[in-house]
Amino acid sequence: MSHTNHQFKLAARPVGNVKASDWNRTSEPVRDPADGEIVIKNLYLSLDPAMRGWMNDSKASYIPPVGLGEVMRALAVGRVVASKNPKFAVGDHVTGLLGVQDYAYSNGQGLTKVDPKLAPLPVYLSTLGMPGMTGYFGLLEVGQPKAGDTVVVSGAAGAVGMVVGQIAKIKGARVVGISGGADKCRYLVEELGFDAAIDYKSENVAEALQKHAPQGVNVYFDNVGGDILDAVLTRLARGARIVICGAISQYNNTTPVKGPANYLSLLVNRATMTGIVVSDYYDRAMEAAMVMGGWIASGKLKTREDVVEGLDNFPRAFDMLFSGANNGKLVLKLNAE
Amino acid sequence: MSHTNHQFKLAARPVGNVKASDWNRTSEPVRDPADGEIVIKNLYLSLDPAMRGWMNDSKASYIPPVGLGEVMRALAVGRVVASKNPKFAVGDHVTGLLGVQDYAYSNGQGLTKVDPKLAPLPVYLSTLGMPGMTGYFGLLEVGQPKAGDTVVVSGAAGAVGMVVGQIAKIKGARVVGISGGADKCRYLVEELGFDAAIDYKSENVAEALQKHAPQGVNVYFDNVGGDILDAVLTRLARGARIVICGAISQYNNTTPVKGPANYLSLLVNRATMTGIVVSDYYDRAMEAAMVMGGWIASGKLKTREDVVEGLDNFPRAFDMLFSGANNGKLVLKLNAE
Repeated sequence: MSHTNHQFKLAARPVGNVKASDWNRTSEPVRDPADGEIVIKNLYLSLDPAMRGWMNDSKASYIPPVGLGEVMRALAVGRVVASKNPKFAVGDHVTGLLGVQDYAYSNGQGLTKVDPKLAPLPVYLSTLGMPGMTGYFGLLEVGQPKAGDTVVVSGAAGAVGMVVGQIAKIKGARVVGISGGADKCRYLVEELGFDAAIDYKSENVAEALQKHAPQGVNVYFDNVGGDILDAVLTRLARGARIVICGAISQYNNTTPVKGPANYLSLLVNRATMTGIVVSDYYDRAMEAAMVMGGWIASGKLKTREDVVEGLDNFPRAFDMLFSGANNGKLVLKLNAE
Repeated sequence: MSHTNHQFKLAARPVGNVKASDWNRTSEPVRDPADGEIVIKNLYLSLDPAMRGWMNDSKASYIPPVGLGEVMRALAVGRVVASKNPKFAVGDHVTGLLGVQDYAYSNGQGLTKVDPKLAPLPVYLSTLGMPGMTGYFGLLEVGQPKAGDTVVVSGAAGAVGMVVGQIAKIKGARVVGISGGADKCRYLVEELGFDAAIDYKSENVAEALQKHAPQGVNVYFDNVGGDILDAVLTRLARGARIVICGAISQYNNTTPVKGPANYLSLLVNRATMTGIVVSDYYDRAMEAAMVMGGWIASGKLKTREDVVEGLDNFPRAFDMLFSGANNGKLVLKLNAE
């Protein structure tokens, strides 16, 4: 092949917010696949808050950090353009950890085939991908909402939060989303059918919860940590379940993480706080895809992707995650089909 | 009757450590029981860390605060000395929330009869009382230790911690106690059969856990909160269960509670943090009493009470709880039989 592979490699471990100099943009010719290998042309790249954690030299994580000089780890969906692996044919579409680059090599391990006729490709990085599965299993397995429960979700207009809130509605819960900005809050209520939305940028979250969750919070799905987690802790109902999915407010900290000062509310309310990592549920991915695919088809579950174009916009798009500039699941479109 | 009832009433809501001026020692004649009432002569008074919380004007607790001017709430065991209630005879021994006073009046609600022939009376405030039940149900229902698990307990030489560690041993776990001082640590290992003890006053808890819990902590029963909770969070095994029973290190704070900065370890390790309030299990008190009574009889479960004499020593004894000066369950002996 005579194609060029453009890549973003990790140049330095960021301190606080990621800077342009933490990335190294490189180019190299695309080589032919080795025996057993396939070459994938990446079409859409997923931008996820978890990527920030992968950049830290932390031993205590669920996945090893990205090494300095390595291509940045990212989920993507692409098309097989060369194959010396009998399980994959040229033209197959696949998703997996393909990295921030135009082309990826793989022996096929960890890849999943996807069908662009069943859903647009970006949806396989969104509701039918990792964020959707995170919301599905985190809410249903750990949060266990019952009809009539009040379910609160932060980062509600993000890829995971949208799924959490809509599934909670499907299960008969009253749903309150916490999000930043009037537009996002309007979207949650008017388009996604949330019962209420709290704009944390202009409202006092604890006071707003008193209004919107007068019987207390039965399930809290936390994507953000920090002050919002502390505010929700003051409004728990007896036996509440808190799902710890992430803490985007803390990921760029240069000071220690702010622990939840109100955690003794767990004691008073006999409540539980439980961490979830989606990879524990990968063996049940088909279940989630079938159920959520059915909800999407019947109009019960809406999916929204915010598509930014061009590999060179990767650093800027990555920043959007942390400023909250995206509307729905943030995806980078890399190449035309 | 011509007896005098000496009482300690709450004179002021303490800020930080409780001061002598926060108590008001009063005396009044003991009156005859009204219809349906009994009069109880308190024999032993229980001193519990939870009492500090009852002194705060906090709405968000599991029990209303003690009112200013009211007799301080406390568990006690006593003997019925006058009865106009057919369910109680003079000479019966009872336990319940009888207050910091020599004599108490009751309509019988919330009282439990105890038999001094089956166990010494202070044990009904200790292993066979509220602290024992807290350890029993908190460990077995929430912590759910399995044989081979590593169970860590803080406040390990206290009333609850002693029970937790010994039950965990009975269930086949490896048990590490965290306690303050070489004497207490020696007691845990040599007398109670703990596998290891960490002296938080002279050791780095996180480093010591690396040595004593090399496979990680499966169950952590937390009585103390603060820095020790944060240290244990760095050593969790996958799927760990943290039981939040109390946070004695934080009860006298004049600044906000220190939240666990390392709580995202729950996410990485798919771990759970759950609060427990013992009153949720009062309907199963007989079960706990029978099982633990059997263990005590067979020598598998040791109980230890630290008895201070005299109602007038109440303020000093109360302080001992927070300085850690007590060895085992702290009990105030009020009156001779």
